[in-house]
Amino acid sequence: MSKQAIGVVGLAVMGRNLALNIESRGHAVSVYNRSREKTDELIAEHPDKKLVPAYTLEEFVESLETPRRILLMVKAGAGTDATIDALRPLLQKGDILIDGGNTHFTDTIRRNQDLAKSGLHFIGTGVSGGEEGALKGPSIMPGGQREAYDLVAPILTEIAAKAPDGEPCVAYMGPDGAGHFVKMVHNGIEYGDMQLIAESYDVMKRVAGLSNEELGKVYTEWNEGELDSYLIEITSKIFSKKDEETGKDLVDVILDRAAQKGTGKWTSQNALDLGAPLPLITEAVFARVLSSLKDQRVAASKQLSGPSPKFDGDREAFIESVRRALYLSKIVSYAQGFAQLRAASDEYKWNLHYGEIAKIFRAGCIIRARFLQKITDAYTKDEGIANLLLDPYFADIAAKYQDALRDVVTAAIKAGVPVPAFSSAVAYFDAYRSERLPANLVQAQRDFFGAHTFERVDKAGSFHADWS
Amino acid sequence: MSKQAIGVVGLAVMGRNLALNIESRGHAVSVYNRSREKTDELIAEHPDKKLVPAYTLEEFVESLETPRRILLMVKAGAGTDATIDALRPLLQKGDILIDGGNTHFTDTIRRNQDLAKSGLHFIGTGVSGGEEGALKGPSIMPGGQREAYDLVAPILTEIAAKAPDGEPCVAYMGPDGAGHFVKMVHNGIEYGDMQLIAESYDVMKRVAGLSNEELGKVYTEWNEGELDSYLIEITSKIFSKKDEETGKDLVDVILDRAAQKGTGKWTSQNALDLGAPLPLITEAVFARVLSSLKDQRVAASKQLSGPSPKFDGDREAFIESVRRALYLSKIVSYAQGFAQLRAASDEYKWNLHYGEIAKIFRAGCIIRARFLQKITDAYTKDEGIANLLLDPYFADIAAKYQDALRDVVTAAIKAGVPVPAFSSAVAYFDAYRSERLPANLVQAQRDFFGAHTFERVDKAGSFHADWS
Repeated sequence: MSKQAIGVVGLAVMGRNLALNIESRGHAVSVYNRSREKTDELIAEHPDKKLVPAYTLEEFVESLETPRRILLMVKAGAGTDATIDALRPLLQKGDILIDGGNTHFTDTIRRNQDLAKSGLHFIGTGVSGGEEGALKGPSIMPGGQREAYDLVAPILTEIAAKAPDGEPCVAYMGPDGAGHFVKMVHNGIEYGDMQLIAESYDVMKRVAGLSNEELGKVYTEWNEGELDSYLIEITSKIFSKKDEETGKDLVDVILDRAAQKGTGKWTSQNALDLGAPLPLITEAVFARVLSSLKDQRVAASKQLSGPSPKFDGDREAFIESVRRALYLSKIVSYAQGFAQLRAASDEYKWNLHYGEIAKIFRAGCIIRARFLQKITDAYTKDEGIANLLLDPYFADIAAKYQDALRDVVTAAIKAGVPVPAFSSAVAYFDAYRSERLPANLVQAQRDFFGAHTFERVDKAGSFHADWS
Repeated sequence: MSKQAIGVVGLAVMGRNLALNIESRGHAVSVYNRSREKTDELIAEHPDKKLVPAYTLEEFVESLETPRRILLMVKAGAGTDATIDALRPLLQKGDILIDGGNTHFTDTIRRNQDLAKSGLHFIGTGVSGGEEGALKGPSIMPGGQREAYDLVAPILTEIAAKAPDGEPCVAYMGPDGAGHFVKMVHNGIEYGDMQLIAESYDVMKRVAGLSNEELGKVYTEWNEGELDSYLIEITSKIFSKKDEETGKDLVDVILDRAAQKGTGKWTSQNALDLGAPLPLITEAVFARVLSSLKDQRVAASKQLSGPSPKFDGDREAFIESVRRALYLSKIVSYAQGFAQLRAASDEYKWNLHYGEIAKIFRAGCIIRARFLQKITDAYTKDEGIANLLLDPYFADIAAKYQDALRDVVTAAIKAGVPVPAFSSAVAYFDAYRSERLPANLVQAQRDFFGAHTFERVDKAGSFHADWS
């Protein structure tokens, strides 16, 4: 009996779709699920496909060519550990486990190191693109042993999304947890992008009074230019969608309580651990949390009044300012996210390649966008650049668009419309380009009350003043 | 031989000073340090004090009345665990360990539960006020078994700071980690306060051109009013301090790189875990981190230009606006911090009393301030209030001062001066009082790309739209 080159464990929607994606490239795929119903269902739905069911892990492992390539698509956390524990005694040196789940990178580091003791390879890989991406071509961010990656690279390359220039959206990220880390930051960036778009919507609606129809047109137009991206594209479509029940615009029927699955939170918590400033994405995470306090907000709206927006500017000019504000804020957000990647690469010794990362984000994933090419270009010119804002293209946009960003934020603040991410973008931009910040006062205070010492501007060392 | 009512393990500066504080209230105190030099030093420096040295833990434990009260003032983390492990076999049921270190509350929960298995009590207590507070009267925030607290309360009450009305700044916070949690949030609030003061300094200096002398006068004046607080008081003094070496104003000689010891970071990370919006304190933490990237900022200042501040307003009026902006932002920050306390109390089942907490912050600790009485008053009127901004006093300040806050933030943004915490305060205020936020768009996007479903405004349930 011939053996398969790869097998998939876990046949929920992401696992199924990845199995079907691999099969569609001409590979027979072994499939296994803890409860056999899912396996039978998949086989029954696709009787003509080269999917080879296994009903025990022993049978599953036996059905694979060595070194075995096993893609785990199980519930992240305890589910992953349980599956690894069950598989481990059945495997042999050189076999490769690939965790495609939504795993915290520290778990991936731990598992990678633990399995390495038995000579087993462990690849933690980000897979972005949702159900459809999994089926047709996701963006794939694998990390782990380089030699193991080389053995799975051909298949991953086949199933990955293809960028507009035809390049597959997969690349080796780095050792142990690097792949899942990059996916985490991808998701954090996604939080930032979505919050920025939401703020652009809110100011155009609440400050300048745009209707849903007008908003739909604006986003459609924006999608033709610098902001060309998947999220702007779907935003433009959202505004023309009608609710089937009421006939109203669906966007107005949807409750304004944003949910989250935790990867944005992880990104912010890690940035705090690394000491990498990530205020914009963190404001986006908190904005979702605050939105979920709907009852409190409704109560507060009756007790806390604010200014009454009255717009008397030029609408077209304002819309263009919002577009510029959005693009520059997005650049600031990515500058923060990529600076976090650099801090992580230093801290965890991953040797990340930032230009490669931007490159594989160009298709398949949620944050895919034309402007990612600019990030790749920036790092191609200078891999060592400390912050994207220092790249000539981005510095030029900052020079040209900062007035618009300042105008939009001040208009929103005067109108009482919250723009936490836009404001945070301005604050970061101005702080980052400040040779001198007021942190000297903070250090003076810390030395005053806690003898924490301070540095001086004129010589090296730690100093303490007698403040009494 | 008579035995002592309490003993202190760990004689670094905080432990020494607390021992001396206890002794000064008429108690003999057993003292122990891992290396005997520190013990001998303390005894030699204070030969006339009722300090009873012990040179082994056995001797130390033997020297105490039962149930024993042992205050641990050792390095937080592994040091605390090692000390507990060494003491544990020497103790008997009902003995009380009190950890006064800077411990993460989750460690305190773990230790409390673990020691309880042996019938030992464990109190984790926040101690705020630095070296001087430890000696003369700190603010004390103990958590753990209530019955154990009652046995140490008399001594803690004697050594605690006294508020202006004579009340001691100590109160039982709640079970297991509640005390260390409250201390953590205290420190987070301290980060917020310090960043807000730093921003007020920066805008008055860089936007309105105030000199250090003028700034010193402004803060002195502010300290007479609503902003009356320890941090404003020391700020006013900082501006008149000369550098002994150069004769320059010391504040200008201090390098603008703020350091941190991690408790602000913990507060933000916990807020993210709890889903309690804490954007202002988090911006303050990131502001310190960003300040530490001094070399990058110096380089960026040469490549990224911004507007040139030109102030043509009324200086006195602007200063008053900054004062109002600072006070309202401070209120927003405390509203966030106290909402985090409430979320924690619900999550960890602590039954915290928010008015009591504000009360014990009134003296001894770094954030002591006149306005804390207003927080106590608010919770005395309504312990169940969801957010301090809904209390009539604070809502009234918000109504009266929000224009000033908006003016200061817009002036700073136009001038290119970063005000991340002030901006975040406005954004939070406007979001919190928004009946409708643009999170409906975020939910539409999530349902579009990931079938994450959404809620509707007109009926309960989870819904999914066919967006294709």
